[in-house]
Amino acid sequence: MKPDHGQLLYEGKAKRVFSSGSNERVLVEFKDDATAFNAQKRAKLEGKGQINCQISASIFEVLEREGVPTHYLGLESDNWMVAQYVDVIPLEVVLRNIATGSLCRETPIPFGTELSPALLDLYYKDDALSDPLLSEARLEKLGLLSKQKLLEVETLSRKVNQVLTSFFANLDLLLVDFKLEIGLNQHNQLVLADEVSPDTCRLWDQRISDPEERILDKDRFRKDLGGVVEGYGEILKRIQGVCPKPRNYK
Amino acid sequence: MKPDHGQLLYEGKAKRVFSSGSNERVLVEFKDDATAFNAQKRAKLEGKGQINCQISASIFEVLEREGVPTHYLGLESDNWMVAQYVDVIPLEVVLRNIATGSLCRETPIPFGTELSPALLDLYYKDDALSDPLLSEARLEKLGLLSKQKLLEVETLSRKVNQVLTSFFANLDLLLVDFKLEIGLNQHNQLVLADEVSPDTCRLWDQRISDPEERILDKDRFRKDLGGVVEGYGEILKRIQGVCPKPRNYK
Repeated sequence: MKPDHGQLLYEGKAKRVFSSGSNERVLVEFKDDATAFNAQKRAKLEGKGQINCQISASIFEVLEREGVPTHYLGLESDNWMVAQYVDVIPLEVVLRNIATGSLCRETPIPFGTELSPALLDLYYKDDALSDPLLSEARLEKLGLLSKQKLLEVETLSRKVNQVLTSFFANLDLLLVDFKLEIGLNQHNQLVLADEVSPDTCRLWDQRISDPEERILDKDRFRKDLGGVVEGYGEILKRIQGVCPKPRNYK
Repeated sequence: MKPDHGQLLYEGKAKRVFSSGSNERVLVEFKDDATAFNAQKRAKLEGKGQINCQISASIFEVLEREGVPTHYLGLESDNWMVAQYVDVIPLEVVLRNIATGSLCRETPIPFGTELSPALLDLYYKDDALSDPLLSEARLEKLGLLSKQKLLEVETLSRKVNQVLTSFFANLDLLLVDFKLEIGLNQHNQLVLADEVSPDTCRLWDQRISDPEERILDKDRFRKDLGGVVEGYGEILKRIQGVCPKPRNYK
């Protein structure tokens, strides 16, 4: 259901952000579009937007209870979320618990290596540059954020990893790695923004040992494994087994 | 002239390293082969090996006088050098004084930006992986060297940059950026290894303002500008104007 909304502020690959009646809040629409490899691969997956919106809402509520500040305020409808207006820092923060994906293409670290403590990779969020990896020295030259704020980003990201690894483990899901985006809200507070969903997290079903069958996340789409929405739906089902229905905004 | 030499220990894109009579020394042959873009582009450039060997020898002697430890021992012939046997750390250390090349493709930093202090980029030396950029966190996971040794590598690299920037400036040459390789010698001392030449340094002729004409280094080859050996020869000529002939080994 499409709520009343204002102006389109931003359109990403999987979401659209609209203004609301207030300067402090935005409306986020979760789309059914799936993209991979910097949008070179595209598809529409019916139901994905709704599933990711519901998963994200529940995860944001879990994080909130654990003291992690997020932009989430509540749901507006099945695939619309109300969130704080934030200035998103153009960084993709990737936390890796198990080596896979680009890490194994870009280093000699073998697939499946346990990375403890988790490896924190920072990428510059820029489609035209294909979201390049940043070293700390390059990040400093870009002047995107102060050393102090970078430390806060790292602390926040590791806290999210700790909470989610444990949350998913209780659902027999292994949190392999995930991407976060972080923003500054109107009170200049760092908050978790964007979404937390199978589009942004690699999650393996610990009840299954087959290395392809266990994949429940966007890798099903990247690797043409089929059953993408079904994988996402399985994650939602397990979350719904332990979480209350996410709150509506007001 | 080909000296007596032992077994081939290593063949790189521009050099071959042979054993000598002693465990502590190797013989390095500078080849005429030119490669770029991870060896996808190749050519033979007659005279390049000899020029790079002579330039490297003089530069190593300059660095030595300024207290920078190097693997260089002396020349054997025009394109053969005697060097210490070192275990080369599989890192490419790139110091950038002016933004160009991959930095401008991988970040929004505009071409020509002065980077002061110089940006230090670390790459994992592995042709199969196309020498990927490393963050400090990835470097730590690879376990290639301790934090202490990394600090020493950085200190050594910045000292080289300081000495060479000033040396080349006196020859009306702008040291734009350069790549270093560093090794551990038999006394476990960090020393500058590999070569320092127009294959590994971007050098712009400050007597020329035209942005292509001023290029005297491997970018002439990468960009198909012609006059590659002539550019290298101009650098050697200016060095010979201020440096004595490099010493022969023994």
